[in-house]
Amino acid sequence: MIGIGLIGYGYWGHKLARNFAAADGARLVAVADPDAARRQAAAHDHPSARIAADAAEIIEAPDIDAVVIATPPALHGALAVAALDRGKHVLIEKPPALDHRAARDIVGAARRAGRVLMIDHTFVFAPAVGTLAAIIRGGDIGGGDSGGGDNGELMFVESTRTNLARFDPTIGVIRDLAVHDIAILDHVLARRPVRVSARGRRIDGAPEDLAYLALDYGDGLIAHLHVNCISPVKIRRLTIGGSGGLAIYDDVEPVEKVRVFGRANGADLDALRTGYRSGPVRSPTIAPEEPLARVVRHFLACVHKGETPLTDGAFGLRVLAVVAAAERSLAAGGVPVAIEEA
Amino acid sequence: MIGIGLIGYGYWGHKLARNFAAADGARLVAVADPDAARRQAAAHDHPSARIAADAAEIIEAPDIDAVVIATPPALHGALAVAALDRGKHVLIEKPPALDHRAARDIVGAARRAGRVLMIDHTFVFAPAVGTLAAIIRGGDIGGGDSGGGDNGELMFVESTRTNLARFDPTIGVIRDLAVHDIAILDHVLARRPVRVSARGRRIDGAPEDLAYLALDYGDGLIAHLHVNCISPVKIRRLTIGGSGGLAIYDDVEPVEKVRVFGRANGADLDALRTGYRSGPVRSPTIAPEEPLARVVRHFLACVHKGETPLTDGAFGLRVLAVVAAAERSLAAGGVPVAIEEA
Amino acid sequence: MIGIGLIGYGYWGHKLARNFAAADGARLVAVADPDAARRQAAAHDHPSARIAADAAEIIEAPDIDAVVIATPPALHGALAVAALDRGKHVLIEKPPALDHRAARDIVGAARRAGRVLMIDHTFVFAPAVGTLAAIIRGGDIGGGDSGGGDNGELMFVESTRTNLARFDPTIGVIRDLAVHDIAILDHVLARRPVRVSARGRRIDGAPEDLAYLALDYGDGLIAHLHVNCISPVKIRRLTIGGSGGLAIYDDVEPVEKVRVFGRANGADLDALRTGYRSGPVRSPTIAPEEPLARVVRHFLACVHKGETPLTDGAFGLRVLAVVAAAERSLAAGGVPVAIEEA
Amino acid sequence: MIGIGLIGYGYWGHKLARNFAAADGARLVAVADPDAARRQAAAHDHPSARIAADAAEIIEAPDIDAVVIATPPALHGALAVAALDRGKHVLIEKPPALDHRAARDIVGAARRAGRVLMIDHTFVFAPAVGTLAAIIRGGDIGGGDSGGGDNGELMFVESTRTNLARFDPTIGVIRDLAVHDIAILDHVLARRPVRVSARGRRIDGAPEDLAYLALDYGDGLIAHLHVNCISPVKIRRLTIGGSGGLAIYDDVEPVEKVRVFGRANGADLDALRTGYRSGPVRSPTIAPEEPLARVVRHFLACVHKGETPLTDGAFGLRVLAVVAAAERSLAAGGVPVAIEEA
Repeated sequence: MIGIGLIGYGYWGHKLARNFAAADGARLVAVADPDAARRQAAAHDHPSARIAADAAEIIEAPDIDAVVIATPPALHGALAVAALDRGKHVLIEKPPALDHRAARDIVGAARRAGRVLMIDHTFVFAPAVGTLAAIIRGGDIGGGDSGGGDNGELMFVESTRTNLARFDPTIGVIRDLAVHDIAILDHVLARRPVRVSARGRRIDGAPEDLAYLALDYGDGLIAHLHVNCISPVKIRRLTIGGSGGLAIYDDVEPVEKVRVFGRANGADLDALRTGYRSGPVRSPTIAPEEPLARVVRHFLACVHKGETPLTDGAFGLRVLAVVAAAERSLAAGGVPVAIEEA
Repeated sequence: MIGIGLIGYGYWGHKLARNFAAADGARLVAVADPDAARRQAAAHDHPSARIAADAAEIIEAPDIDAVVIATPPALHGALAVAALDRGKHVLIEKPPALDHRAARDIVGAARRAGRVLMIDHTFVFAPAVGTLAAIIRGGDIGGGDSGGGDNGELMFVESTRTNLARFDPTIGVIRDLAVHDIAILDHVLARRPVRVSARGRRIDGAPEDLAYLALDYGDGLIAHLHVNCISPVKIRRLTIGGSGGLAIYDDVEPVEKVRVFGRANGADLDALRTGYRSGPVRSPTIAPEEPLARVVRHFLACVHKGETPLTDGAFGLRVLAVVAAAERSLAAGGVPVAIEEA
Repeated sequence: MIGIGLIGYGYWGHKLARNFAAADGARLVAVADPDAARRQAAAHDHPSARIAADAAEIIEAPDIDAVVIATPPALHGALAVAALDRGKHVLIEKPPALDHRAARDIVGAARRAGRVLMIDHTFVFAPAVGTLAAIIRGGDIGGGDSGGGDNGELMFVESTRTNLARFDPTIGVIRDLAVHDIAILDHVLARRPVRVSARGRRIDGAPEDLAYLALDYGDGLIAHLHVNCISPVKIRRLTIGGSGGLAIYDDVEPVEKVRVFGRANGADLDALRTGYRSGPVRSPTIAPEEPLARVVRHFLACVHKGETPLTDGAFGLRVLAVVAAAERSLAAGGVPVAIEEA
Repeated sequence: MIGIGLIGYGYWGHKLARNFAAADGARLVAVADPDAARRQAAAHDHPSARIAADAAEIIEAPDIDAVVIATPPALHGALAVAALDRGKHVLIEKPPALDHRAARDIVGAARRAGRVLMIDHTFVFAPAVGTLAAIIRGGDIGGGDSGGGDNGELMFVESTRTNLARFDPTIGVIRDLAVHDIAILDHVLARRPVRVSARGRRIDGAPEDLAYLALDYGDGLIAHLHVNCISPVKIRRLTIGGSGGLAIYDDVEPVEKVRVFGRANGADLDALRTGYRSGPVRSPTIAPEEPLARVVRHFLACVHKGETPLTDGAFGLRVLAVVAAAERSLAAGGVPVAIEEA
């Protein structure tokens, strides 16, 4: 039984608590939050957990094996380092920190401590993203890594993610929305962009409400991302095309979230010129699981077996590096900015 | 009755002939083609038309008022100038010429002759494009020009046009596919890009089979176009977002080709954060007319009334200028290239 | 502040409790359930509510104004009559009772007591159903009741409701699924079927897992319903066609749940013969509200103002009468069965 | 080279002529039509064919091997019998005749003559229908006939076919529209209905503009068809559900006309209760061929090899018998009518 201590009982912390409380092999031991009303809510929701005002009571507690951090990002660094230094495993709500240096400190602390560090990039754990990753890895579309054969190549990546309003009015859509696509692509494509250029729209000094990003992978592949929070309709569509076919992941679509369009060999050229598609289409079964429940299960499994999480500290650093480079490019009017290696 | 002479009886010429033969107020007087088999086909299809091997027999004929040119583009210039100099009205299959200079010569000849010159940018005459142009002009989305009020502004334009195979193996997808989007946007947005950057994919020295274009309108608006001829599914989707709403034109969709998503005022912020859309959606009625029939009717009406066609010589020059600048940008690795004014 | 007492803390009771606890103008005073584990759950979820094993403690309590009954249907009748006789307002999870007689007793008790009786037909309160009802009432499709004009007529109603599995293995799909369509149509069409015929499929004596119902409204209109719990894909589609247009309510569709297809006057007959649609399409804005929250709000408003609920006892009787007639028809091999008036 | 003689050069005859003229292995020898304008059109379109006013010139001609009949249905019988008696193969535009007796005479004549008789039920030859038939035959859905295994069973068939206007104002929608579904189901399901009931709507004595048909296959399977010519949107959707899965054929959908929803074994019951689907979805590749071209090719192949066409005389009789029984049921107010065996 892994003892869990949660720091921060706001919107996301409350969801994390619910999921840990429901997970096999874990026990929600304690919750800390400086806000009295939130402590009251935590006590109501989890009567068997200890409730504290001070995060130190979590970090120091001998019956807590893993610390879950869901505070404002500015506090992530100090809390995570302290917990790791105390030998706790750590799960941090994304982003790991506001800046690269603080995030690197966390990664260093995890390495020193030999403890599991995982960043909660929830969307990476959406079942449809796992399905998409398996499709790419299997080489159906191109770019697979199943050894020993020519899996063709990936040719284009296009993503549009629009929201009807801002989630967080203090940050721009690169940090608020594009971060999800950057994380998803890191996992799905299993390669890293080397350069990013970003253009956007800022009104009256507010953070950008619309941005275009071009991620250049240095091998000919470019991923184009469009994010905005000013659309009257929600669009969540990621298209990945390769020499072997094309996959569309439409997260708004309830029934067929992922569709794979195959390329037929030997098709008639005239038919191709005027036709609507060349090969069969399939839509794999996707389990209707909640992504956050999978985050929690993965973290617990890594702690249990001593394995490295999919979204470990290095993953978090990589995503952060792309976000930071994109923001620099945006500020510089769209010039390509190299992505510093973590 | 406007006497029509057609030069070139290939794939497109044959369709033009059929449409002129069926149009009110026109008579297909003669068809010229140097190829014997094509002349035979023309004679079979249009028994009452004179058939000639030599284009001069069209250009010189006193009973021909308007010359329709559907030859390979390299021949457009000389034929069009000769016809205009003889006082004929001229309709040219797009592009007006292979290079800017030849195209400008045609425009100059039309001006001197005081005759109608129209470039057959067929897709601009798709009924759905007309509907889209009216929506933008009316200011529903933003960016309208209906005088005297604040119509808001356009914020983003995204287009994806994929084909399952090349139409013309000798040219790249900028010239083959993006040209349609460039022409459509010229009409729909009623503004001109000042700069374009293009990235693409070329395999073994073949013309590019995939390209991304960013058209910069100089006023903050950027249109992103993606074209390729290597997709296993046909995608034809143009999205235009503005402060007032968003329009999606999906040419593959049979029932609702154009949908307009409105933005609701006073919507609840929490509902917006998690909702799928904010306002009503409508899909205007679109007459199921053949675009080429509308091209022919528009040309005949302009000849009849002495009016300037929507896709006149200047329009053709503008499109050509964007295409040429995009190809230069592609060759230069994606640097922005200024679009020279015609 | 209306004091609420809830009897039954199972799957649905738990949801009702949550919604009453969150509603303005109500206070969840007490919860009763004979099952100890459920009482424990209720105590955990609603620490400020009294928890009892015996329903009598709810019915007798002077600080309870309204009793919410979410027990197995066989118990509804006795509990509801007792509560009404004690002067309580009553909300009953659908169905009001297992048989007509018991349901009629409840309605009689409500009339004698002069108290509000509402049946929780949740789906009738789905925002999209309200939108659909308003469309029909407004006469856009036909069959409207906006006085003084000819609103045309309704011509056909088709509904398919499939589930991937049974909700309740002890009852057939008429009682489990078709009941929702019968209730929705009662509200939306604002007319009553006079006769119903039903055919279905029963395997090895189990309740029917598939059924077709034809509701005959006696005025020429027939509604065809298909329900089953053996489909590998969820279908929730209701189509209502009239002389003025057609509405499709697709509950699986996230973005455009209700679409209204208009009929264009003066359309070209040839275009109609081969076209995809004749008039404009619109998809009204639908608030993303939870149906059960609207049930609770409506009940509280009726109690507060002494008004008759939309889904009052008579509504429940009407739905029950159609269900019972359909089951008789099914048992008799599909012969039409008259629907007895409540 | 099979010599073809065509009788009737109206809307459909003109299409048949074009397809025979383009087919390998056939030569359009002669066309007959009593109408002078149509003869002129035929002469223009097919300059190498003999043109006649009198059908006898087709039937008697020694250089004609096969006679194609596209006259009004009332004339089909006499012409077909005469042609068969002269030893010609015969293709008849559907229906084979207006009444059963005349149709049976044709079938008898074909049997006596030992010649190929095919009824042009074009929609049966739509590539998507062939795909659907193969899916059913293969047992993917249930009801397959691939010997030796348990293919499960078919459980429901639902079809909606709406048109925006009447094709033929003189006949009702059973004869005009439902006939297509009856023919498609005959081929796809490979079984015959034994009984049909039909309800419909007739205004002012005009033929029915809306009809519901229930085809009872006598083995528990019932197919429900809805046809009308008064819808503002075209719906062409056929759903076939079985114990193994479900297929949807939506003819309006350009990209995925046929989708097959699989049923997952061992799926979690809770997931099924609230999920959107249980197994994978696939959409097979469908060649974009013109159905009528396939009709012509099939007829020529049968003549060439002496084989029995898919839509032979018996097929035509079966479809006619269902149509006639449905019309009788409609006239009798919906009572089930037995379908007489041909």
